[in-house]
Amino acid sequence: MSALIEKPPGVKKPRRTRLPDGLDLAVAFPTEVLPLLERELYRSTVHHAGLPPGLEEELRQAVGIPGGGGRRWRPLLSLAAARACGGDLRDALGVAVAVELTHTASLVLDDLPCMDDADERRGASATHRRVGLSGAILLAVGLLARSAELLGQSSRSAGELAGVWGRCFGLSGMAGGQAVDLLGTFRHGGCARRLHRRKTTDLAAFAVWGGAAAAGAGAATQEALWGFGEDLGWAYQLADDARDLDEDAALGKAPGGRRPAAQSIRLLGRARRRLRQAPGLSPDGVALLAGLGCRIVGDPGRVPELQPGGMPC
Amino acid sequence: MSALIEKPPGVKKPRRTRLPDGLDLAVAFPTEVLPLLERELYRSTVHHAGLPPGLEEELRQAVGIPGGGGRRWRPLLSLAAARACGGDLRDALGVAVAVELTHTASLVLDDLPCMDDADERRGASATHRRVGLSGAILLAVGLLARSAELLGQSSRSAGELAGVWGRCFGLSGMAGGQAVDLLGTFRHGGCARRLHRRKTTDLAAFAVWGGAAAAGAGAATQEALWGFGEDLGWAYQLADDARDLDEDAALGKAPGGRRPAAQSIRLLGRARRRLRQAPGLSPDGVALLAGLGCRIVGDPGRVPELQPGGMPC
Repeated sequence: MSALIEKPPGVKKPRRTRLPDGLDLAVAFPTEVLPLLERELYRSTVHHAGLPPGLEEELRQAVGIPGGGGRRWRPLLSLAAARACGGDLRDALGVAVAVELTHTASLVLDDLPCMDDADERRGASATHRRVGLSGAILLAVGLLARSAELLGQSSRSAGELAGVWGRCFGLSGMAGGQAVDLLGTFRHGGCARRLHRRKTTDLAAFAVWGGAAAAGAGAATQEALWGFGEDLGWAYQLADDARDLDEDAALGKAPGGRRPAAQSIRLLGRARRRLRQAPGLSPDGVALLAGLGCRIVGDPGRVPELQPGGMPC
Repeated sequence: MSALIEKPPGVKKPRRTRLPDGLDLAVAFPTEVLPLLERELYRSTVHHAGLPPGLEEELRQAVGIPGGGGRRWRPLLSLAAARACGGDLRDALGVAVAVELTHTASLVLDDLPCMDDADERRGASATHRRVGLSGAILLAVGLLARSAELLGQSSRSAGELAGVWGRCFGLSGMAGGQAVDLLGTFRHGGCARRLHRRKTTDLAAFAVWGGAAAAGAGAATQEALWGFGEDLGWAYQLADDARDLDEDAALGKAPGGRRPAAQSIRLLGRARRRLRQAPGLSPDGVALLAGLGCRIVGDPGRVPELQPGGMPC
């Protein structure tokens, strides 16, 4: 038998990317928790009865209710972080919903004609194409407001959650990153570059950290998980850039995304090392978060199971 | 001598509006606390170093820093409520600043071409005329975000402050009121009408309540002060409407503002009665809030000291 598995001399063994531990957990977890999350997302988008007809339905459409539309990876991270810290999923449900609503608000605003001017989002017309500019802006404000409400009602660390959330979506975070993107230049060096990156990283970091904080994790665990979320957020962005560059390369427009893909893999590795250094996480929790991280980023090395498209959520 | 002060038969004694108690306190209070408030407003508008050049200065210009521009009546109410409850002014400073930043965010958004399309604000060009549409929207988001940060850092009731603030500026409050104003109709009856009113009343109520909550007031006091702020906010709006109608009447366009003026006086009276029913307020505190209320609303009966223009802030 041994002759059968011996490789012929001079023929290289095909390189296999090792699948990360926890991928099975990361496949089962969304199936388990998404019904709960979707129900809570619906409940959280019910507003005052006097709103103009149809506006509340348009709000839900923007959030992708019912039936998703988004992959919900940020709220999944909040719930997974809570479980990894030994907390109850329900403790982090408000954070999870707030994160998804805040993400949706940023999409609605980014799509406006004066920003990125996008006509479509989540497989449908962009919000401003359906409710007009003023309607879209008011819906985005409403989504941010409901996020604050939910965070303020958290049974643990409510003030801290609301305060850190404010820093993340404001001019020192997501809105600042978008301002650099639209109005700034990188001539001002590292500061502008770091702020620009926060457009992507701050909400991912908040999602993981917030889930842990709401579940009562200790300070060192919270700090390590913040770093994990930040690295993961940037790895996701770089993998996305790599895919775009690869598409452009196929059309002869760009040199391909090898460089951002390599950076993405390196960052994903660092994110996973941070997890292993976080005190107080269960082994299953570490595996779950690591597996989710790989599925979220997708593997620029092209392992099908790690492609974002393979994620059922 | 008695003959000298007797009124001649048939000549009516000129009617005098009785000045409310506490007007002296309400004149001295802004002079005392405004320097502290302005300093804190400045500190609270410092952001990340990488922002596009000039954007932070434009943010301050929108808030009216330095040198005011706004009358700052909402944050003054927060500080006065804290003092009336026996608390330290500094406990309510974060709430006061958050209220003014949130108010400014609502002005920046309301002035956009797709909303009320105003070219000027606080004696200068409207924010979108200076920084463009995307800049104005991002600054408004930044102001809301910084408000959340400040409320979340409050040393008392931080979570509750952030949560209630979210309800106040969202689609069940200010943003909902603006949506009714722009996109809705009143055909849907009382619900839409009540929501529309919240565009004005919710932030005034939050300002007073928030100051009291941050200073550690009891539940019954908080409830009474919420009602006081709500009535005061609507009385202010009605007095403003009355003045507009009087101006139109002078041009022969409208029947004059007698009716909203009468409603405003009635509401101001109810607001002051609520104050007297609030447990745990010092007599000076009741007088200060009542006096401030009268100065804020102005007296549609035209007593000069009670006109908003007479307020030095």
